[in-house]
Amino acid sequence: MGPPGCAQNAEDVKLARTRSRIEVSAVRDFLYGGRELWDEHTEIANVVSEDPVFDKAQRPYLIRTERYGNSLKMMNRIQQLREEHHWSSREYSKACSLLDEPVAVDLHDMAFAPVFMAQASQPLLSKYGDLITNHGILGCYLQTELGHGSNVASLETTATYIPDTREFEIHSPTLTSRKWWIGGLARTATHGVVQAQLVLPGGRMIGPHLFFIQLRSLDDHSILPGITLGDIGPKAMDGYTAIDNGFASFDHVRIPKDHMLSKFAQVTDSGQYIQPPHAKMSYGGMVYIRAQIASRSGWTIARAATVAIRYATVRRQGNRGEDGLERQIITYPSVYNRLLPILSRAYAFILLGHNVGKVFSVMSERLASGDTSVLAEMHTITSGLKALSTNTSTQDVEVARRALGGHGFSTFAGLGRLYANNLPSVTYEGDNFVLDQQVTRAAVKAYKNFVSSKSPSESLLSPSSLYLRLLLKDDTNALTALISWTNPRDLVDLLERRALCLVQHHVEHINDADASADQRVSRAVTESFAAAQVLVFIKELPAALAATDASIITDLLTLYLLTTLESALVDLLSFGLPPGDSSPGRSSADPTSSLRAAIKNLCLKLLPESIGLTDAFGFSDWELDSSLGVYDGRVYESLWDKAQTEPLNKMELPPGYEEHLKVLLRRGQKLAAKNSAKL
Amino acid sequence: MGPPGCAQNAEDVKLARTRSRIEVSAVRDFLYGGRELWDEHTEIANVVSEDPVFDKAQRPYLIRTERYGNSLKMMNRIQQLREEHHWSSREYSKACSLLDEPVAVDLHDMAFAPVFMAQASQPLLSKYGDLITNHGILGCYLQTELGHGSNVASLETTATYIPDTREFEIHSPTLTSRKWWIGGLARTATHGVVQAQLVLPGGRMIGPHLFFIQLRSLDDHSILPGITLGDIGPKAMDGYTAIDNGFASFDHVRIPKDHMLSKFAQVTDSGQYIQPPHAKMSYGGMVYIRAQIASRSGWTIARAATVAIRYATVRRQGNRGEDGLERQIITYPSVYNRLLPILSRAYAFILLGHNVGKVFSVMSERLASGDTSVLAEMHTITSGLKALSTNTSTQDVEVARRALGGHGFSTFAGLGRLYANNLPSVTYEGDNFVLDQQVTRAAVKAYKNFVSSKSPSESLLSPSSLYLRLLLKDDTNALTALISWTNPRDLVDLLERRALCLVQHHVEHINDADASADQRVSRAVTESFAAAQVLVFIKELPAALAATDASIITDLLTLYLLTTLESALVDLLSFGLPPGDSSPGRSSADPTSSLRAAIKNLCLKLLPESIGLTDAFGFSDWELDSSLGVYDGRVYESLWDKAQTEPLNKMELPPGYEEHLKVLLRRGQKLAAKNSAKL
Repeated sequence: MGPPGCAQNAEDVKLARTRSRIEVSAVRDFLYGGRELWDEHTEIANVVSEDPVFDKAQRPYLIRTERYGNSLKMMNRIQQLREEHHWSSREYSKACSLLDEPVAVDLHDMAFAPVFMAQASQPLLSKYGDLITNHGILGCYLQTELGHGSNVASLETTATYIPDTREFEIHSPTLTSRKWWIGGLARTATHGVVQAQLVLPGGRMIGPHLFFIQLRSLDDHSILPGITLGDIGPKAMDGYTAIDNGFASFDHVRIPKDHMLSKFAQVTDSGQYIQPPHAKMSYGGMVYIRAQIASRSGWTIARAATVAIRYATVRRQGNRGEDGLERQIITYPSVYNRLLPILSRAYAFILLGHNVGKVFSVMSERLASGDTSVLAEMHTITSGLKALSTNTSTQDVEVARRALGGHGFSTFAGLGRLYANNLPSVTYEGDNFVLDQQVTRAAVKAYKNFVSSKSPSESLLSPSSLYLRLLLKDDTNALTALISWTNPRDLVDLLERRALCLVQHHVEHINDADASADQRVSRAVTESFAAAQVLVFIKELPAALAATDASIITDLLTLYLLTTLESALVDLLSFGLPPGDSSPGRSSADPTSSLRAAIKNLCLKLLPESIGLTDAFGFSDWELDSSLGVYDGRVYESLWDKAQTEPLNKMELPPGYEEHLKVLLRRGQKLAAKNSAKL
Repeated sequence: MGPPGCAQNAEDVKLARTRSRIEVSAVRDFLYGGRELWDEHTEIANVVSEDPVFDKAQRPYLIRTERYGNSLKMMNRIQQLREEHHWSSREYSKACSLLDEPVAVDLHDMAFAPVFMAQASQPLLSKYGDLITNHGILGCYLQTELGHGSNVASLETTATYIPDTREFEIHSPTLTSRKWWIGGLARTATHGVVQAQLVLPGGRMIGPHLFFIQLRSLDDHSILPGITLGDIGPKAMDGYTAIDNGFASFDHVRIPKDHMLSKFAQVTDSGQYIQPPHAKMSYGGMVYIRAQIASRSGWTIARAATVAIRYATVRRQGNRGEDGLERQIITYPSVYNRLLPILSRAYAFILLGHNVGKVFSVMSERLASGDTSVLAEMHTITSGLKALSTNTSTQDVEVARRALGGHGFSTFAGLGRLYANNLPSVTYEGDNFVLDQQVTRAAVKAYKNFVSSKSPSESLLSPSSLYLRLLLKDDTNALTALISWTNPRDLVDLLERRALCLVQHHVEHINDADASADQRVSRAVTESFAAAQVLVFIKELPAALAATDASIITDLLTLYLLTTLESALVDLLSFGLPPGDSSPGRSSADPTSSLRAAIKNLCLKLLPESIGLTDAFGFSDWELDSSLGVYDGRVYESLWDKAQTEPLNKMELPPGYEEHLKVLLRRGQKLAAKNSAKL
């Protein structure tokens, strides 16, 4: 038995579970998309977590080369397990996502293979498809360069067609044209897909296209002639440590003509260019990757929320109550006011992820049948949600980490690692600032189309611009009187109205826009879309869950809407939308009070359910890998046990004691003795 | 000569320097507090940067035990240099601050020694003072425990007085009472000052007091009997890697009675307690440490601003202009709108730091002469500024890092390291959320005192509550008409008025306060104080600098005030303060537009000065240690050179190729072959 302090921790979390009314298994199945998917998750998690290859205990103590070596071992083992257990590709993806360590093969599976499969010609597919699926070759996706990231049109690598030999010559003309940041390129990948400027005979520049290229020998993994490869070095905050993000330059490297990914655009033998049917046909891949991100962000927030809420439930600090115990920190307003909104966003983004997945499937089918009209809408929704959800998850993980107090800065708390590995998501797959511009541009276009339409009606509106329906109503002031902070419909109306005001104002001032307009408009439009979806989820809850669970999750999603409104207060107030009266001179009245009071009340109502709501994420201790988030609440024992694994604790004397520390101390002692002799 | 792309980089930064009108050396001297201090800085920076012991190139590749061993080497060397060069303690501190690596001796110098010197009795000082000054012993400050951080009153470690032997017995009764997070404790320190509950004969508990204790033998560094020491393990995001933050437990360890730090409180031989003259007399140390933080935060922001502004000046991306070049990214509104406000905060906090230093000296003198009335004000100002400046610096470093785009995630960009080492500042020396509570409590008290005063006048107000002077004026509406975004006085008035509104409202609703009230009130009060100080700086500028420089820095500080107002818009709008008209129904007018336009205009005006304003921070390339912030602008060459130092690039084949990667590839190739044989 542990000392009294820890027994109390265990007691606290146990009691919290007893008090929570939520049916954990039912809500968990709902979050996983059904009991079957939860069972699948459990089965795979058991296999992976019991395998010593995936043990996480030593990771914090390995240097990068060791972490990388270890990742190869993991990649090999996970593939063995896939074959042993006959995992489907969904099951295999699930297993990879459980490793809690981004590895090179992720880039093969999520970037290289999908692009190749979607855009290679049939002969190329026949030759390499099976090799790719079975990891007989490993690929990477070579897009960004040292000098260019989001601006694909300005990439410098060239692919010049040589009609004589029917080859392309891949070349890196400058230092800045070196491919850079490419995951898996430095040491792992044998092949790659290169984005390069297509140059036709006579020097005609066609713009960026994709080319399949072999990088290393399949015999001995040696680098092929004309290619220079290397690792770009370690990443910030110890993130993505095990991935060999690499650089590459090409010195007039020849590849066969049929290595151009030519499902859409083609070059004839003589060097004529054949345009793709739709200029943006090849963007499907990027949209697909982005579509996954909302859901992933939701689960990232869920991890942080679980750790922080469990710890805040067992951590006691402050004056002692009548029971002789200090107060559980989760009962402090400044703590629950940070953690419950995070929990609500985890639920909202996970559910949004489900939905985007469904919408994406429908749209993909239409796209496959040649209907490219859906591309713009898909692009807007996935761009907006990608920017919103990654900005949010990055921020929420850090807010949760800070709520852990001092111990949050320990590696063993687990949230530093989560933050570092999540952080590049704000930049990759489209820098969020660039995506905001595109979302805003689409919103302006949708607005102009709608107001110039001869017979505007709600049926003309796509989901991303549904808020424009408010233009059809003449009720500008109706809302003011009717708003209720407990009615989700009102909250959504308000968020839609805010989106409309911002877009309208932006259209009117497009030529003298302020410097943050794109960010604010994009956020307002995307939050309006998300809120409308959340309202749909709320309506569907009673059919999916028992009454108590449905009601609790309705409250949680209402908290999501309320805190979204709170973060939108500047917009609401500046456009004279409720909350309340803010006329000049009323300096002692704060019209935002009622919103904040509603948030506080809802937090207090949800507080007893917070442990159940986090348990419903279904994370095992192995998955969370956090001393502060252990299921049984024995956080201090866990921190203590982990500290014993630190290599410094296995050394009798500190490294460098004799040469440095002893010398320093002795010299100081002599000086002090000399001084005291002087006295 | 480098390739064309890089020559252009060098050209861009050179041209930017030519265009900047600022007199870099004059502004630099101003920021350093005078030419003498700049010269001192240069001299010491030269010594340290040229010494191979402080070479930074290998740090990213060392594991923690190596980084720690290396830190001992640095500690020994810096002390040698101190003696060789006869550095004053200020010069020595400067040298330590340049190491860009938090090391254990920092805790000796900044926590252990000041507390010991301020609170030890004269006999103890005579015995150990010289040893401490000369690093003949190294100390740590043992306050936080596994179970308790900010709530010092609940610490569990006991110091029980034994009258028979005139000793104290230091004891750790529980797992949670173990000292934890103590910098330098695990492997470095020979001695420490322990916070422990004083227990007198008969079991009378007196509360936490400080005791000096020896931890390790000075002969062989072995741990003394009854003491268990160890390292708590690695820290999040690779921060504070080289420091051996430790744990300790004490098993009835006896120390002599005169090892209690008894300058203020004492215990007689028979076990009677003698109270200190002022209950908070011993808080001076904490206040001193916090007083340094505003300035340190300012310089942290300065580093991030320098890196990001230099990179944004040479990075080109987007459509090509008439000169055939892409656009410098700093000219994009979404970029300069992020970076120039950061620059303004660097200046504001550096200058605030100077000022707090001066105020602190005056207050210290009064305190030394027994006048403890100043303690409360010192506590409020330093707590508020500590919370504000560390929240700001943490955020600004990350905003700057994101403005670097993809390359910002490279270790070589330097901002990840800056972020990780700065991050604990939001938690240590008082968790910011706890400090906010204290600042708000002080503001409520000041308000109540003032309004209940018989003859309230401005002279009664301390600097932290100067905004209460607005209560003396009957001009609630006067401001509305008069506001000018270019007049700093108006901006400060508005920030003071906002503070007053928030405090008033909070006092009126103290029993139904919302959950974030403490944070908002504390921020408003502290920003009001900071703004009033900034106004003083602006007035003093013409005497300190030439007209052009003074005018540019006035603009920069005005930008600080404007962006502070922008971040306060919810408060301003909700209390009906300007900007403008926000009455319901005016849905297409945005009253915040004029403020945002003013910010944009000022940013555009300052843009050509941004390189000069960052050069004036005087950072050498060695100090910044950032490939993206190199002085000559050759960022891509620097990234390239750094990448060559990655150990993975020195291995012919990846570690684990034969055992794992080759096995994986071969198996996949066989499977693919089997499939194609089937067809």
